[in-house]
Amino acid sequence: MGQTSLALDALPGLPEIVPGCDLAALLGEASARARLPLVDGDVLVVAQKAVSKAEGRYLDLSRVEPSPEAPELARRVRKDPRFVEEVLRESSAVVRATANVLITRHRLGYVMANAGIDRSNLPAVPGAERILLLPADPDASARALRAGLRQATGAEVGVIVSDSFGRPWRVGTVNVALGVAGLPAVLDQRGGLDRNGRRLETTQVALADALAAAAGVVMGETTESTPAVRIRGLHFDAPGGDGQGLLRPEAEDLFR
Amino acid sequence: MGQTSLALDALPGLPEIVPGCDLAALLGEASARARLPLVDGDVLVVAQKAVSKAEGRYLDLSRVEPSPEAPELARRVRKDPRFVEEVLRESSAVVRATANVLITRHRLGYVMANAGIDRSNLPAVPGAERILLLPADPDASARALRAGLRQATGAEVGVIVSDSFGRPWRVGTVNVALGVAGLPAVLDQRGGLDRNGRRLETTQVALADALAAAAGVVMGETTESTPAVRIRGLHFDAPGGDGQGLLRPEAEDLFR
Repeated sequence: MGQTSLALDALPGLPEIVPGCDLAALLGEASARARLPLVDGDVLVVAQKAVSKAEGRYLDLSRVEPSPEAPELARRVRKDPRFVEEVLRESSAVVRATANVLITRHRLGYVMANAGIDRSNLPAVPGAERILLLPADPDASARALRAGLRQATGAEVGVIVSDSFGRPWRVGTVNVALGVAGLPAVLDQRGGLDRNGRRLETTQVALADALAAAAGVVMGETTESTPAVRIRGLHFDAPGGDGQGLLRPEAEDLFR
Repeated sequence: MGQTSLALDALPGLPEIVPGCDLAALLGEASARARLPLVDGDVLVVAQKAVSKAEGRYLDLSRVEPSPEAPELARRVRKDPRFVEEVLRESSAVVRATANVLITRHRLGYVMANAGIDRSNLPAVPGAERILLLPADPDASARALRAGLRQATGAEVGVIVSDSFGRPWRVGTVNVALGVAGLPAVLDQRGGLDRNGRRLETTQVALADALAAAAGVVMGETTESTPAVRIRGLHFDAPGGDGQGLLRPEAEDLFR
């Protein structure tokens, strides 16, 4: 890493994202309109919610039939049994279930609240109770956006699909990277030496998570008018990675 | 929050930080020299290590006498018993101890590796084995830097004292905020409504942690030549907070 400065700019003026839209083209147009053009080496952080909307990851809760285990868990966490059913379907394990809190391991490996299912700020459809799931494969979403942005703008940009996560032991959410394309997700400094020849102990830096966290500050949380942030100023010579590379295998978890 | 863009700039040209130096004055001089002046509303993220060095938080490992419990734990984690002894002295509880891994709850509440004690890139002193502890009170350090920067530059800036942390379930480190002064550590959005009148579920945003993570990208890890990063572009009307506000009381931890 040689960056000494970074500039983050939210892309204003994106329309409501609807299923089947060409999100990459919309992002390219928004960046041009805002005079925030994309150039080689830029990284675009895109909110998971916008990606899920474009991919049509809606589900109608009124059509979900809870399985036998959902109602009891729903009582414990004080949530809708149909919603809990859908969280369970998206998850491989329940990590914590208590009043108003349902944290699971998403089947893609993310440990997060409600398997990332969203219910707020969704366009209403009469007669339906819509929820929004994570993209089916956020790394594939990131790769597709990167390819689409290359086509729309000619620029080779990195893409991060990002969502806000709670953390153990610490208050509040920060954004992390779910899907990554075109930039290293983790910078590996293992084997490096400090100036006294001592082997460095901090060895892996979660670059994509740090960039997602930074972008989260300018995305805002309530208006959702700016689900994409351009980051300029990165220099790295490591190869591109993916969001799965940010997930620690369960057996290697350091904290339990 | 109304920010739509952020600019991060590492402050180059800081000298080696020595105990008793006026770190705020050095930071003010570096910012002026680099033509990166500080103005009201800027946030300066400062590496914990620079703060600890200025505060003289060195300890000579060769003078540490391990208590009876240190050697066995040291064997388990494959670390120097004297180092382990010092980690235990800084901590209120051991969270995880396995080969090459010793995660504790620091007596100030941070759950982190080695109680934040550093051994790399320290200026060597003949005959001594130096280690560097966290500041005694990182929030007080942040407040003192903020006051010192006001005196040195006339500007009312926010200050974050930051360190890199590992995370459960995820690979790699990100920087988080240990001490905070002059900006909200957490933005509270509880009670907010989405556009359909639905109560927002994401309620608290860990602003200072996100800013620390962003600054970590431009600080670099190996050269340590840029332990301070200026962040410009924040707008918030919430009152200032502190780093302790980012720590979840043990009984309220959501993940176990």
